[in-house]
Amino acid sequence: MEKNLSDLFVDALRDIFYAEKQILRALPKMAREAGSPELKDAFETHRDQTETHVERLQQVFEQIDKPARGKTCEAINGIIDEAKEVIDDFKGAEALDAGLVASAQAVEHYEIARYGALKAWARRLGLDEAAELLDRTLQEEIKTDQLLTDLAMHEANRKAA
Amino acid sequence: MEKNLSDLFVDALRDIFYAEKQILRALPKMAREAGSPELKDAFETHRDQTETHVERLQQVFEQIDKPARGKTCEAINGIIDEAKEVIDDFKGAEALDAGLVASAQAVEHYEIARYGALKAWARRLGLDEAAELLDRTLQEEIKTDQLLTDLAMHEANRKAA
Repeated sequence: MEKNLSDLFVDALRDIFYAEKQILRALPKMAREAGSPELKDAFETHRDQTETHVERLQQVFEQIDKPARGKTCEAINGIIDEAKEVIDDFKGAEALDAGLVASAQAVEHYEIARYGALKAWARRLGLDEAAELLDRTLQEEIKTDQLLTDLAMHEANRKAA
Repeated sequence: MEKNLSDLFVDALRDIFYAEKQILRALPKMAREAGSPELKDAFETHRDQTETHVERLQQVFEQIDKPARGKTCEAINGIIDEAKEVIDDFKGAEALDAGLVASAQAVEHYEIARYGALKAWARRLGLDEAAELLDRTLQEEIKTDQLLTDLAMHEANRKAA
């Protein structure tokens, strides 16, 4: 049988479900390594938000009557590996925070792309409640990205230079 | 010696240089597989833009007197692998274009995150010409992402549903 938008939606849902769980594991390490209290705080707040994002995805899986199951997402693994590399290479350096912010923004942008597509597909499939949940997470990812830009502009990059 | 913002800048420059080259190789395949002429056209146009992005990066390497050398970027490799998976799984299906658009948007968002950081760091380092070049590419990536959203809304997702 030909695969359709519904299959694409479920595939992408599993991809981001896996990604969110990896992010949930990476954020405490990033918070620990961050030099500035503001950045630590941003990572900790975003960790709590990420728990909510995982729960929302579980709700979406329920709504479409599918088991909440992740699927290895090499993209997020690559992005998180690069964040770990920054931590290894810049540990103790003034530039570490600038690197951490940039890594976190790569994570956010991956999520913004995925949630944007998921929300549009949910609408197209008539899954209005799911679209609403996905949009709430999308808006939080966009806000986090903006917060990180502000932190970079006002602190991390200045300290690093 | 402690690593600084300048090292972070060069590392990220090598990361995106590698990424752009991988994107340059992936786009013709995506254009070939795309069903709609508009999407084919968008991928072909973006391939040409990507050549310019590679050239601009070479200019930035010259400006900072470093060899133009890439560094394996697992993030872009993961994102491109996911695009290939979509092509394999949805070949011939009406939903393929919707999947291709989403994959391309994941690529764009990775670049938007990286060029955003690079441009800010170039400014901070007083590399105004480099900042200008990086910003030009950043604006093109943002425009491409918007074009892809338009294509998704008006065609790919509707056809897929």
